[in-house]
Amino acid sequence: MDGTLVIGIHQLYARQSHLIDSGNAEGWARTFTPDGEFHSPTYPAPVAGRAPLRDFAQDFARNARAAGEVHRHVVTNVYVESVNPARAQVSAYLQVVATSVTGGTRLLRLTTVHDLLVRHGDDWRVARRDVRRDDAA
Amino acid sequence: MDGTLVIGIHQLYARQSHLIDSGNAEGWARTFTPDGEFHSPTYPAPVAGRAPLRDFAQDFARNARAAGEVHRHVVTNVYVESVNPARAQVSAYLQVVATSVTGGTRLLRLTTVHDLLVRHGDDWRVARRDVRRDDAA
Amino acid sequence: MDGTLVIGIHQLYARQSHLIDSGNAEGWARTFTPDGEFHSPTYPAPVAGRAPLRDFAQDFARNARAAGEVHRHVVTNVYVESVNPARAQVSAYLQVVATSVTGGTRLLRLTTVHDLLVRHGDDWRVARRDVRRDDAA
Repeated sequence: MDGTLVIGIHQLYARQSHLIDSGNAEGWARTFTPDGEFHSPTYPAPVAGRAPLRDFAQDFARNARAAGEVHRHVVTNVYVESVNPARAQVSAYLQVVATSVTGGTRLLRLTTVHDLLVRHGDDWRVARRDVRRDDAA
Repeated sequence: MDGTLVIGIHQLYARQSHLIDSGNAEGWARTFTPDGEFHSPTYPAPVAGRAPLRDFAQDFARNARAAGEVHRHVVTNVYVESVNPARAQVSAYLQVVATSVTGGTRLLRLTTVHDLLVRHGDDWRVARRDVRRDDAA
Repeated sequence: MDGTLVIGIHQLYARQSHLIDSGNAEGWARTFTPDGEFHSPTYPAPVAGRAPLRDFAQDFARNARAAGEVHRHVVTNVYVESVNPARAQVSAYLQVVATSVTGGTRLLRLTTVHDLLVRHGDDWRVARRDVRRDDAA
């Protein structure tokens, strides 16, 4: 397995979390391909395309703020199932951690993401993400 | 330190968690060497060999299900203390996260694993794992 | 991005946590440059230089023990923003997890670190760390 490709994939996951958690919804949407898809049991229909993905990320930040909280996406257990210079299949754990601005941190949920990635120049982008929630098992 | 070797080690830890957490007890047992050993203060005797390791992983899944929960192994802070093409010594943190099927996620415990790994083809396997629990310090 | 450099950076973060959490305050201080700086909203003045950094790490361990707890630094989402063979700029999430010696594990807080690293031989050291706490946003 090509180490440089795998490291680029780790970078993608770290960068994605920093983008959405710092309120950069546009930047987060651009970590998907232009027609990238986000499938989650939390939402009735998949989110597809960058404008809907950006709105999705903005809603995430707005909901956290409305609750008087900071939410963080903590990615772990990044497992590259297969990779070549053009595509990769990856599974990872994604925890959402909430901190109240008045103090107190808690683990909100743990989800598993199954991603199809495609390479774009030196970067990787998500072509399709499938999210599973442990509380919807 | 050889980057490709280190990346293979990170892959082992991610893969191990996905295997045991998805109920693939046989696959998890095969991430150990045929005579691999698992030492933990939780159990009176070490678990050694693949059949006992597989039973151990099955019990883990069965206990979670019986509690109406999904349990996840979250591995972080993977530190490769030493590595050569044949062997490696690694320390890592392992958190167990529980989610009730009726909702609610919590951190069950944090343990530290100290592993002796041996290389097998392109993969790494655990020859011996020593687990320390913070609540048994 | 050079894979070997990035892997060395991941090793630094894993090693740092193992050092401070195992009570090796001197070793942790030496993961900073001799005049390394630690800036955090928790403390009125930055901690700078190895002797003050060592004292800082000793206080951390002492406070945990006094509370009858084991504290762990869990590092995730390590994002290497830029790197060359001499310097790197990195962001990461750092969770503090507390386990009572009488049982019970909880997430104490989540912070974000923004680090300037400099290379020293084969290792990386922290020249300046800026910590942000979500509960002081």
